[in-house]
Amino acid sequence: MAKRWRIGLLGLGTVGQGVAKLVLDGGDGLAARSGFQLELARVADIDIDRPRDVAVDRSLMTTDALSVCTAADIDVVVELIGGKTAARECVLAALAAGKPVVTANKALLAEHGLEIFRAAQDAGVSVSFEASTGGGIPLLSSVRDGLVANEIRELHGIVNGTANYVLTRMLADEMPLDEAVKQAQQLGYAEADPTFDIEGIDSAHKLTLLAELAFHTPVDFHAIYVEGISRIRPADIRYAQQLGYVIKLLAIAKQVRGNAPDGNGNGIELRVHPTLLRHDHPLAAVRDNFNAVLLVGDAVGPVMFYGQGAGRMPTASAIVADIIDVARGSAAQTFKQLTFFHEGSRALRQAPMDEITTRYFVRVTCEDKAGVLGRVATHLGEQGVSVASIIQKEFGAPTVPLIILTHTAVEKNFRAALARIDAEPFVTEPSAFIRVEAEE
Amino acid sequence: MAKRWRIGLLGLGTVGQGVAKLVLDGGDGLAARSGFQLELARVADIDIDRPRDVAVDRSLMTTDALSVCTAADIDVVVELIGGKTAARECVLAALAAGKPVVTANKALLAEHGLEIFRAAQDAGVSVSFEASTGGGIPLLSSVRDGLVANEIRELHGIVNGTANYVLTRMLADEMPLDEAVKQAQQLGYAEADPTFDIEGIDSAHKLTLLAELAFHTPVDFHAIYVEGISRIRPADIRYAQQLGYVIKLLAIAKQVRGNAPDGNGNGIELRVHPTLLRHDHPLAAVRDNFNAVLLVGDAVGPVMFYGQGAGRMPTASAIVADIIDVARGSAAQTFKQLTFFHEGSRALRQAPMDEITTRYFVRVTCEDKAGVLGRVATHLGEQGVSVASIIQKEFGAPTVPLIILTHTAVEKNFRAALARIDAEPFVTEPSAFIRVEAEE
Repeated sequence: MAKRWRIGLLGLGTVGQGVAKLVLDGGDGLAARSGFQLELARVADIDIDRPRDVAVDRSLMTTDALSVCTAADIDVVVELIGGKTAARECVLAALAAGKPVVTANKALLAEHGLEIFRAAQDAGVSVSFEASTGGGIPLLSSVRDGLVANEIRELHGIVNGTANYVLTRMLADEMPLDEAVKQAQQLGYAEADPTFDIEGIDSAHKLTLLAELAFHTPVDFHAIYVEGISRIRPADIRYAQQLGYVIKLLAIAKQVRGNAPDGNGNGIELRVHPTLLRHDHPLAAVRDNFNAVLLVGDAVGPVMFYGQGAGRMPTASAIVADIIDVARGSAAQTFKQLTFFHEGSRALRQAPMDEITTRYFVRVTCEDKAGVLGRVATHLGEQGVSVASIIQKEFGAPTVPLIILTHTAVEKNFRAALARIDAEPFVTEPSAFIRVEAEE
Repeated sequence: MAKRWRIGLLGLGTVGQGVAKLVLDGGDGLAARSGFQLELARVADIDIDRPRDVAVDRSLMTTDALSVCTAADIDVVVELIGGKTAARECVLAALAAGKPVVTANKALLAEHGLEIFRAAQDAGVSVSFEASTGGGIPLLSSVRDGLVANEIRELHGIVNGTANYVLTRMLADEMPLDEAVKQAQQLGYAEADPTFDIEGIDSAHKLTLLAELAFHTPVDFHAIYVEGISRIRPADIRYAQQLGYVIKLLAIAKQVRGNAPDGNGNGIELRVHPTLLRHDHPLAAVRDNFNAVLLVGDAVGPVMFYGQGAGRMPTASAIVADIIDVARGSAAQTFKQLTFFHEGSRALRQAPMDEITTRYFVRVTCEDKAGVLGRVATHLGEQGVSVASIIQKEFGAPTVPLIILTHTAVEKNFRAALARIDAEPFVTEPSAFIRVEAEE
């Protein structure tokens, strides 16, 4: 006989309705698979009258979220309110009342993780958050448990489906960014205000959580370098393609050794930015609104996880998996061991962007005259930046784009070279560059 | 302080040495991540004198594997002997002694799963087998726990790295199969006798385990349709490529509804065979000796897991993750719920190959004369098989290959049509066909 497990659900929006649907419709199948008869015991939302896609018993509903957090007949609190104010208050109230919490709220955890995880440890209960990153993909549990034997060396993730959809459309249909964003909005992939997705902030929230888990270090979200895709032009995508690359918005985390000033010389690079990947890179084939994260462990080598990173049912799938993990008692076991937003865990230095080394794709717009290429190459060379390939095409226009792919260089040096290039009189508009993740 | 957890290791071969290395070198990092101080307490191998890549204390070693299985100072038994005789005896002895077992032995589980899992249930201990399928990829735990909220609809897997390496080389370097196999052997990707890998038997073992977990049904390994890649010719790969497809050896499992004679009308298709995939299919980009499994869940949609499916350290990574899962007590929790090789679980009917519906890529070798195409198309049409596309090229030779891609058809009908085609006097050698997984 499956045991009852009573859920207090906060927020009956898109994902909340998905969770309600899985719990209410899951029936014997879900009980057989999990060993638990999940029960939607209490549901809180600011609007309990609005018609919904799932039939939740009106008598279970309340507008008082805090009352659900502390109710005696609740075994687990599922926070799907979103944002950082009411959600934070509710999560802390639930933890103080000794309730394990399941949440999809990456912004809350990335920015208030230390406070929340300390409260959970004090209360001796767990916080589960598989749904916060990579939607329905069993990603965080895999990093935490499945790859526990490994030191993670690096990870590259497409963790925002909206931005990936926009880049996919820009490539496939040669449309400008704003048109692709409009299309994403029509399909429900993008919010009315898409800033968080397009500018990389959502990706940085998720990178914070991924890096905490992968590297067992406190991460300062505010110190992550974040650059979105709003300045990518269709022409950049086309030139990249001609060189054998695609452009993706990546969240990147890498161990760096030896260049940090602390005792053991270790550190990490954490950055979110548009990135050129070779067309045969595993992440290059991740299209539309899909997410994927490629990690490299010292024992396992490269491992990739791929799936829907958002949306009602995929996210609900992860929430319900977390609820069952809590019910089984597994969450309590693994949470104890989690050095996640833990003051006691070793703090790795977050390397500033000036220090990183990578390759660069550069678009210099200049007058089409003799000597220009030489001057550009000289500025790069003087900063130790060497050129791997160049595209220069005749367009019969007074200005032409010069597309350069560099070898690996130090960011600070590359930027210094670019500043000198842009100070040249023959350069007619500021140059643009996109970082490249590819072996030499 | 991390708790001690004592391992009895059976088999110090390739993977066994990898496990020993992770345990002996893991040190504080592994203890901090896992909460356990793993200890290599006893090691059994038929040859304890041979020099090895890892320094295991000679005093821990014995040739008596059974003594390790029952030793009082062992917390978990790790079976890496391989094969189905000694391994079966040792696993049963360990379970009878109340020791949880961790194994990578897919052949043993696929063919003796019922006996082994019954013994584990009787003894009240767990059997863990993450390393058996997909090597280091956290695949089985993801299906079991991470996707627990889902009914799995279907799965497609590249689960044999040797076969995938061979197909990759045949495509990239246009080499025949035997040459690619030789290269795989030189790189250590293929055994001296590569039959199990090339003929699909290893894939069928893994499919048995995946389907048991995904569909919660007993699976009869011997009833799985298995066809290897030994008859694939470079020309097939080339023609497939011209049509926009790549050829992969896939393990396929699908829910089928309504065509089964049992009460609820449900069943499953289980098959291993070379398969054409469109070049933009997520599995098409899986190259060399990599593995990947794409599952579709009713809530989560498509999810893919990718990584090294074999090899010393990737496999050891999964073994150590399982050991820690046992130590944490999580394995005991999830194993209780596992309807894996469980007599009580509902048995879904395994549909015979005659019933499956799929698309076909066909190579008919025939004399180059008028009327041939019409006769071939007529035979297909009379069996309800319609043609999607055809490649016919002039080679100036007396016989020419006719390459046909069909729409979806019933296997039985397709085979009947092909028998009639091959009976035509203008057909000069038996026709070959490869199944196609692609939307119409």
